[in-house]
Amino acid sequence: MKRLIVLVSVLFFSTPLFSVNFESLHSWKNGNSKQEILKYVSTVTEKNSPDFIPEKDRIAVFDNDGTLWTERPVYFQLYFAMDRVKVLAPEHPEWKTKEPFKSVLANDINGVMKSGEHGLLEIVNATHSGMDSESFKSMVREWLKTARHPTTHRPYTELIYQPMMEVIGYLKANDFKVYIVSGGGIDFMRSFIPEVYGIPEEHIIGSNGKVHYENGKIIKDNEINFIDDKETKPIAIYYGIGKQPVAAFGNSDGDFAMMLYTEAHKKYKTLQLYVHHTDDKREFAYDRKSHVGKLDKGLDYARANHWTIVDMKNEWKLIYPFESKKDRE
Amino acid sequence: MKRLIVLVSVLFFSTPLFSVNFESLHSWKNGNSKQEILKYVSTVTEKNSPDFIPEKDRIAVFDNDGTLWTERPVYFQLYFAMDRVKVLAPEHPEWKTKEPFKSVLANDINGVMKSGEHGLLEIVNATHSGMDSESFKSMVREWLKTARHPTTHRPYTELIYQPMMEVIGYLKANDFKVYIVSGGGIDFMRSFIPEVYGIPEEHIIGSNGKVHYENGKIIKDNEINFIDDKETKPIAIYYGIGKQPVAAFGNSDGDFAMMLYTEAHKKYKTLQLYVHHTDDKREFAYDRKSHVGKLDKGLDYARANHWTIVDMKNEWKLIYPFESKKDRE
Repeated sequence: MKRLIVLVSVLFFSTPLFSVNFESLHSWKNGNSKQEILKYVSTVTEKNSPDFIPEKDRIAVFDNDGTLWTERPVYFQLYFAMDRVKVLAPEHPEWKTKEPFKSVLANDINGVMKSGEHGLLEIVNATHSGMDSESFKSMVREWLKTARHPTTHRPYTELIYQPMMEVIGYLKANDFKVYIVSGGGIDFMRSFIPEVYGIPEEHIIGSNGKVHYENGKIIKDNEINFIDDKETKPIAIYYGIGKQPVAAFGNSDGDFAMMLYTEAHKKYKTLQLYVHHTDDKREFAYDRKSHVGKLDKGLDYARANHWTIVDMKNEWKLIYPFESKKDRE
Repeated sequence: MKRLIVLVSVLFFSTPLFSVNFESLHSWKNGNSKQEILKYVSTVTEKNSPDFIPEKDRIAVFDNDGTLWTERPVYFQLYFAMDRVKVLAPEHPEWKTKEPFKSVLANDINGVMKSGEHGLLEIVNATHSGMDSESFKSMVREWLKTARHPTTHRPYTELIYQPMMEVIGYLKANDFKVYIVSGGGIDFMRSFIPEVYGIPEEHIIGSNGKVHYENGKIIKDNEINFIDDKETKPIAIYYGIGKQPVAAFGNSDGDFAMMLYTEAHKKYKTLQLYVHHTDDKREFAYDRKSHVGKLDKGLDYARANHWTIVDMKNEWKLIYPFESKKDRE
């Protein structure tokens, strides 16, 4: 099957690129970003290309929040944590008067955000520990079944970007190894990404907590171990993959270091792609001043250095898989 | 190709197991261990078997030192570190009188070992830092070209166990994902394992040091981050793979927790295999009282619980790839 796909790709891509008929990026309009993705992949996978990259080195890394699914009003994992605080509240009477828990219990998301990184970590520690990792993932899966996004009222797992799912599929069909490298918690992400995106647990790298081993189980302790963001993304890639990626996909300044690390590859031609949130009707429009997914320095650098910048509003026929087929026309 | 291999396996393994003709474990005598490996793999890969494991969950983990290559007189990485101390010594006049460096410079391996874990970590920190990870790996590769094992006078990369290489190949042909989970340093292992064992960088998990990111490079700092041994092996598997393995291969009490973690799998039939060093002619014979690769508690448990225990002397036709073909008969 793989062989067939490669064969088909080679056959079609050996014709001049701008007349390519065969591709699987159905939800992309025929704009610059789509052309740049197609051109990159054909250039590095065609056997006789001077930019050919052997399969073993075709490593692609994707941020998750804001790159593969929506991250507004706030990161979805925070909604999970807040719901979990409410469930645990009866065991913690002190939370009624103690921030950030007081704000969580009052559904005051601004108050929660005001508690800053320290407050958010407190919430995460209190809600992501005290059980084994498998039980935690089951709990997240249960939560995902009934939880609904506050503005769209959709299940969170429906708020994934169809065009980006197609990029993942397209890269895999061209023998790239696709990894998630995201600030989200590894167990939170591993609970749904394998099924929803088709990326297996062992290709999911994220923030994580300290754990210990006990009787065949991994027990989650009440302490942060590693935050996977900004300059620690290349570090997470080093520990978890050990190869410099050749393609990096992000949407914020949090992904900038990972994309610079990719761009710095000495051996291979690379691709850097920013998803730019420009669509305030179908999704959310934000960049330089956003409290989540801030894209500022990265945007300037991307423009100056000809990285691919996806204009969601004008380059995507549809955003979410549930949008009807007629929206694609 | 994959499909073909699976088809061939199914065809042959559907005949009674003990008359199997097709296999690739050429260097194994037809003893219990070989039969147990063949039986396990056929049982979990045959489509109609009640113990069938889907490909995505076929995770196999291997210790390295003493399981895939020799670890005597001491771990090979220590020889590298000692050679490196000698190279760096002119910049460190204080080492002439300071342990453990004094013993290293005097080629006194017993003195080095006496410095204990703390001393060994000092040597590792001093010799495995202050450069970027790619430069470090290049340095190890250069060292491996000329360094020779003290008793066999062979290059270290020749002292790999041919029968275990065959197990790795056999598992991969049956769609297992094969990982190294070892106490060795990740960069040290990543410098040679991809080429020598055919296991890629991203499947190599090991001990590691703290690092920082700087201008497209990962810089190795002078501090230990994670020691991958005993109870931390399951933890390393959790962070790096996120799935409980179904097959685990080790040779010491350092691997015992990882093997228990594998055995504790709730969903699938599992395999645990200990390489038992019984051959004092062709390799080294040691177990309960060894200063490296001590196998004591693990051996008792393995015997009581019917794990596979490989008797190197009596079950392997040859140990190293360089042994002549006639030794296999």
